[in-house]
Amino acid sequence: MEKYAFGIDLGGTTVKLGLFTTEGELEEKWEIPTRKEKNGEMIIGDIASSIREKMEEKHISFEDVKGAGIAVPGAVIDDGIVNKCVNLGWGVKNVRKELSYLLEEMTIKVANDANAAALGEMWKGGGRGYDSIVMVTLGTGVGGGVIIDGKILNGANGAGGEIGHINIDPEETEVCGCGNRGCLEQYVSATGYARMTKKYLRENKEKPSILRDIEEPTAKDLFDAAKQHDGAALEIVDKCSKILGRGFAIISAVVDPDAFVIGGGVSKAGDIVLDGVKEYYRAMAFHASRDTKFELAKLGNDAGIYGSVKIIL
Amino acid sequence: MEKYAFGIDLGGTTVKLGLFTTEGELEEKWEIPTRKEKNGEMIIGDIASSIREKMEEKHISFEDVKGAGIAVPGAVIDDGIVNKCVNLGWGVKNVRKELSYLLEEMTIKVANDANAAALGEMWKGGGRGYDSIVMVTLGTGVGGGVIIDGKILNGANGAGGEIGHINIDPEETEVCGCGNRGCLEQYVSATGYARMTKKYLRENKEKPSILRDIEEPTAKDLFDAAKQHDGAALEIVDKCSKILGRGFAIISAVVDPDAFVIGGGVSKAGDIVLDGVKEYYRAMAFHASRDTKFELAKLGNDAGIYGSVKIIL
Repeated sequence: MEKYAFGIDLGGTTVKLGLFTTEGELEEKWEIPTRKEKNGEMIIGDIASSIREKMEEKHISFEDVKGAGIAVPGAVIDDGIVNKCVNLGWGVKNVRKELSYLLEEMTIKVANDANAAALGEMWKGGGRGYDSIVMVTLGTGVGGGVIIDGKILNGANGAGGEIGHINIDPEETEVCGCGNRGCLEQYVSATGYARMTKKYLRENKEKPSILRDIEEPTAKDLFDAAKQHDGAALEIVDKCSKILGRGFAIISAVVDPDAFVIGGGVSKAGDIVLDGVKEYYRAMAFHASRDTKFELAKLGNDAGIYGSVKIIL
Repeated sequence: MEKYAFGIDLGGTTVKLGLFTTEGELEEKWEIPTRKEKNGEMIIGDIASSIREKMEEKHISFEDVKGAGIAVPGAVIDDGIVNKCVNLGWGVKNVRKELSYLLEEMTIKVANDANAAALGEMWKGGGRGYDSIVMVTLGTGVGGGVIIDGKILNGANGAGGEIGHINIDPEETEVCGCGNRGCLEQYVSATGYARMTKKYLRENKEKPSILRDIEEPTAKDLFDAAKQHDGAALEIVDKCSKILGRGFAIISAVVDPDAFVIGGGVSKAGDIVLDGVKEYYRAMAFHASRDTKFELAKLGNDAGIYGSVKIIL
């Protein structure tokens, strides 16, 4: 009888693995390093070996295993085929087939990492109790995942939920990591908050601020200054909250989710960011969607293993 | 044996009805007026009577009928319950239950009209062959419908696909019909094009244009002038194309559809509008989604009956 399943979250530095019961309980989690040498050609083999070792250690046979879900940092274009994981050195790769081959034809499913995290949060985290959520991770970049009726919205090109790249300002002169200009990520990622801080201080030389004492102010410096009622910091945070609230309003006009689940480092700033975002959201959302719920992500770094195992269960 | 199904498209002036085979062939279509008196309380009864008459005429028994789908001009909040069809005078109404009661407990399903039109176009119109489309109707307003894996994305509040209300410009001073400012609809509906024309002529008094000879230039006047290479008209169209192309790019970053299907009066303008829109789309879309297809809607006013019957079949 199938009693177990694996959730795998393949990141640029480490691979996180989780052994779950088919009831969805996490039995054990561990990590292995992501070996990116030789265009990452050892990664899939390393994962397979680690799973085999765990199975031996726990006396689990292949008949006991329902399958494994794997979250990858790139676009999943088709049934388990991944298109360019730049971080890993991968081009087009059939992850499903390769991993399945190394694990006695185990059932493997593949998802984009941000989408898997969204599914994990809906299942066991901040989105619990909802059917349709949009998860937004405000980290170094802005990641996103759209879950509709409990299922990942992958998109025709694996770009469903790429909400960090919603065009917010067509007049932006600085370039986003994706090559476009004016993406949401340029304003409300941790990097975006820092960029907006430097820009504000440069363009408003007359405004005093404790942030001027810091050589390279980070998002955290900004939030700390805002909590100390620094006027400039409060203005910058407000500017960004308006952009993020508007981003959520735009998303609602397209998919109208039950709830937004917010994660990532920036969300740790708490009410100083979230209160303003919610206020701007309510002011700019289409009237029917004004009361969409906002929740905080709860699973942290485990969201990926939860979400990836969920696609198997 | 179930051989037939009905598609019903309830509009503010007429109700369009279609008798379909369960194979999806349209056997016959007809219309009845929408009687809006007394807060529209006669509408459901009129529809039921019209269906009964058609069944008698064609010697169809209730056992022969799989069900009826009905498209309504308002938000569908829950299994067949409609929240405010302002045009019809309706408040909250259980359309599914009321219509089913009048038709011997026939299976009834209810969808928003723009969403039903999108489903119809995917099934039998411009979106044929695709699984996931976003339909955009550029008419008096801007309507939208999102279809993912062949299913309508209704949204938690029935506001899925309300893409006419994507916030395009937070600095807009004029107010949209929805009460917000800066909605896509304010720029690229027929009314929006006309508004942008008047605004441009007012703000660029030095620019000559044949549009100045027309007292109240419409969207059609604008497109006609652009086709005659009127410089001002070309500039206005370009401005709007940039906004619409950007709107599509934003939608792609959220749901990444296979294709956009464009309908409504403005789409009749043809390449003078569409070429620019596609160009701006490609320039502003997230790289993975740059090659999303653009198709023209094909079913015209029949999209609603096709889409509403599809939800039953």
